Amino acid sequence: MTEKLGILAIGHGSKLPFNKEVVTKIADYIADKHADVVVRAGFMENSEPTLEEAIAGFSGTGVTKIAAVPVFLASGVHITKDIPQILGLDENGCGNLTIDGKEVPLCYAGPLGADELIADLVYKRVEEVI
Amino acid sequence: MTEKLGILAIGHGSKLPFNKEVVTKIADYIADKHADVVVRAGFMENSEPTLEEAIAGFSGTGVTKIAAVPVFLASGVHITKDIPQILGLDENGCGNLTIDGKEVPLCYAGPLGADELIADLVYKRVEEVI
Repeated sequence: MTEKLGILAIGHGSKLPFNKEVVTKIADYIADKHADVVVRAGFMENSEPTLEEAIAGFSGTGVTKIAAVPVFLASGVHITKDIPQILGLDENGCGNLTIDGKEVPLCYAGPLGADELIADLVYKRVEEVI
Repeated sequence: MTEKLGILAIGHGSKLPFNKEVVTKIADYIADKHADVVVRAGFMENSEPTLEEAIAGFSGTGVTKIAAVPVFLASGVHITKDIPQILGLDENGCGNLTIDGKEVPLCYAGPLGADELIADLVYKRVEEVI
């Protein structure tokens, strides 16, 4: 069977529009660059779609596996507790989602973290104002 | 006069150690890559040093201008209200800090935002688990 990957991009969400705008645009960049991948974005707080609504958005896409990835700079309570609970993950960060009545395996990726790419981007933001 | 740049890298902070670890490591990467720049990290909530303590850390370094940069994925209340208030910024995002009794001009950079670099890094995190 040919695998079809789904990416569930999870944002923090905010009462202000900025977090949703950034996370949605990042999800769009990924979808544009990886045309064979189905990307859906969902949020933990204050922004929509919720995680559950985002998961429902994989219906009809034919995804055979899903990677859930927190689009957060660093880990925190949402990442260590809330998201694993909502997704029903085991201690290895794996689980299953039911999409169109079928069990679809799910794995959980890490947040952005302290990558040198981020340091370069921070320095670029500095250069924009000095 | 030769200019000497200071970068005030501002993190959200957290009760968990991860945000501080990531922001501090990013600040270290910048300092390693730009040896002529003085980098200090400070936090808005729950983590130390505070913003005020981080600013005090420029004492004795001879910095002649400072860029304050929020190491946040997206803008929010800390970035639009709290940080400008603490730093005494005008509506153009500029102000002055007093370092060793001298006025040092300060400008305010944007957060990471929806850059394609971030999208590539999110996809890298996905590839680590699929």
